[in-house]
Amino acid sequence: MIKVDVKQQAQLAQKASKGLALLATEQKNEALSILADALERETAYILVENKKDLEAGKEKGFTEAFMDRLQLTEARVKDFATGLRELIHLDDPVGDSLASWTLDNGMKVDQIRVPLGVIGMIYEARPNVTVDATGLALKSGNAIVLKGGSNALHSNQAIVKVMHEALNDTDIPVDAVQLIATTDREATGQLFTMKEHIDVLIPRGGGSLINTVVNNATVPVLETGVGNCHIYIDKDADKEKALNILINAKTDRPAVCNAAETVIVHSEWLKENKEELIAAFNEHNIQVHGDDKAVEAIPGAVPATEKDWAEEFLGLAIAVKVVDDVQGAIDHIEEYGTKHSEAIITENKMAAAAFMNQVDAAAVYHNASTRFTDGSALGFGAEIGISTQKLHARGPMGLPALTTTKYCMTGDGQIR
Amino acid sequence: MIKVDVKQQAQLAQKASKGLALLATEQKNEALSILADALERETAYILVENKKDLEAGKEKGFTEAFMDRLQLTEARVKDFATGLRELIHLDDPVGDSLASWTLDNGMKVDQIRVPLGVIGMIYEARPNVTVDATGLALKSGNAIVLKGGSNALHSNQAIVKVMHEALNDTDIPVDAVQLIATTDREATGQLFTMKEHIDVLIPRGGGSLINTVVNNATVPVLETGVGNCHIYIDKDADKEKALNILINAKTDRPAVCNAAETVIVHSEWLKENKEELIAAFNEHNIQVHGDDKAVEAIPGAVPATEKDWAEEFLGLAIAVKVVDDVQGAIDHIEEYGTKHSEAIITENKMAAAAFMNQVDAAAVYHNASTRFTDGSALGFGAEIGISTQKLHARGPMGLPALTTTKYCMTGDGQIR
Repeated sequence: MIKVDVKQQAQLAQKASKGLALLATEQKNEALSILADALERETAYILVENKKDLEAGKEKGFTEAFMDRLQLTEARVKDFATGLRELIHLDDPVGDSLASWTLDNGMKVDQIRVPLGVIGMIYEARPNVTVDATGLALKSGNAIVLKGGSNALHSNQAIVKVMHEALNDTDIPVDAVQLIATTDREATGQLFTMKEHIDVLIPRGGGSLINTVVNNATVPVLETGVGNCHIYIDKDADKEKALNILINAKTDRPAVCNAAETVIVHSEWLKENKEELIAAFNEHNIQVHGDDKAVEAIPGAVPATEKDWAEEFLGLAIAVKVVDDVQGAIDHIEEYGTKHSEAIITENKMAAAAFMNQVDAAAVYHNASTRFTDGSALGFGAEIGISTQKLHARGPMGLPALTTTKYCMTGDGQIR
Repeated sequence: MIKVDVKQQAQLAQKASKGLALLATEQKNEALSILADALERETAYILVENKKDLEAGKEKGFTEAFMDRLQLTEARVKDFATGLRELIHLDDPVGDSLASWTLDNGMKVDQIRVPLGVIGMIYEARPNVTVDATGLALKSGNAIVLKGGSNALHSNQAIVKVMHEALNDTDIPVDAVQLIATTDREATGQLFTMKEHIDVLIPRGGGSLINTVVNNATVPVLETGVGNCHIYIDKDADKEKALNILINAKTDRPAVCNAAETVIVHSEWLKENKEELIAAFNEHNIQVHGDDKAVEAIPGAVPATEKDWAEEFLGLAIAVKVVDDVQGAIDHIEEYGTKHSEAIITENKMAAAAFMNQVDAAAVYHNASTRFTDGSALGFGAEIGISTQKLHARGPMGLPALTTTKYCMTGDGQIR
């Protein structure tokens, strides 16, 4: 196991962040372009190193999904470069004035966006996050300390080596990108409490990784979370909209956080539309885990367990709950939702308003799919994650979520 | 020691927060007015209960400053009522639309402000915080769980009893205000990890209280911090502005967080203006703790210790550091500042720009006193504290800091 000096790396990042924060948008954009070119140029090297991770992973017997996320190809490295080049076209939030006013005494107040400083990124064995997160951090003027899953260590080292060499030809200090290159778990723990040098931790991955960070960190955390999302089909739901949205939210990409995991169905709607609902489930091979009424109504449904209500299936299965009014749906979501994305399908404005006002989530939908909770779908261009916390940023987080503000006061000798 | 069921109280607050979040501004304003009237009406009762705390405090031999903060008078209770009535005139942030756009597919996106939910307030033996924090929480649609210093328990119980009785005559659920009425320290600890029921913790008080919360909480914390503020008098500082601002920032209210604790003086300015600076220190009885050059220049100055540079004096003492350029000032602030409020006094635009851009703090000043870092001075009307953290809110926090946002999507069957 390689020993690394996490504190020193964080200090180097912090020092580099000072210069980086002062760069002009053009300087940062030029650097992103140079990084993109370098990654493309060094694809062969990156793939050779990635193969080492893949072979070790095969020996360890990881799942197919895990191996797929770990695997790089020429096309995927090209996607990295494309992603970095897309950042060039996004507005730079740094320097934006959020508010500006003059006090009666003549002192001018200007609230401007400034970079957070140093971002600590803690993530699983997904080399794409190494590039995505670095690009977002640099564009928003932040240094970054990367701690990716140990099983992607060779891939991450190769990617960061290429980026470091490329940064030499830019105005961004090379030290602004730090990879904690070790399989030592203690190294990650050190990041949790390095408040002096790291301004924010962003965990990206499964629930247990996120909980470990949240429970152990004294550095502030931007929590990106699990989405146990619900579609509520109201008594007054339009049949076609309801089935379209349900199937889209469940099957378009079942493994992502904005996919639907439970459908709550009004008993009267179910009675009238039972056959079509069953046909839709069958057509898309969706396994139903239902409450008593759903099991009775839907052939092949199995009784839902507490875990089925509370956790994501992340596959072609869905929990079905039957309620008698919108309040029943709101209460169920209150109990089991993860405050990510929740939808009501109805033509009834009163029911829609009750749902939209009372459901506590980052995004609430009336007659649309939960799949739109996504930075690129909403037009943010890129996202560092989807926040399910309430402080700082809620929902998809674009570049502004990686900034803070500073009050700049200009006076002429004003005192209180 | 009274045992309390902290979890149950937090649950009651959470339940109450649901209804409170939906109230109209007028309903909340009417409630604030009723609370204000009740506190005034019950002044005698509150003072009798406060006397119990004062007598216990006297026996325990608390400092004069501590006793002063604990003591209530008819005038102070009147101030409570006035504070609540002032909140009525502030804009209600709940329901504000921060951004709104329509996707190409016709789905409408609206990002609106909503209450955080339940605020956990942890503070010292200052009964005024009980009223101030409750007022701010209720106006912004939040329930509040109060845990004030044990030495103010009788006062806080009396205040909350009066507020509870008054809430019966309002649309705000009585359970929206919870006092953890115990001297049991474990009760406070329970609040730290009650993520299911409390949305944010706000510690208000000295450094050790804040650190205890930050280090032990898994609930997100809004950190209000210590202000080790600096005034840098540049080579090109105007003498009159420099002395006015320095004396104002040091002496106007030495015990508050936006008071100056260190003055950094350019060596050339010091040489030219030494006599006036010494006269100003003497006139205001300011004890100087200096570096070698300052001790040499200023009669009566004692050598500054590491603690003098790093911590607040909160009284009529100041650390004096002599530097040879603006970078020396920036570096000193980088090392010892607490990212609160920092000022440069200069007529030189280049020096001012370097300082304003490079110093990392909630508020940076050019030719004005650090004393303006304050919600009421900046026109926010009221503040829950001054944030020295970078996430969510930075600097004085008014009502909007007690809200989060929610994306409300309105569609017509849109899928991805």
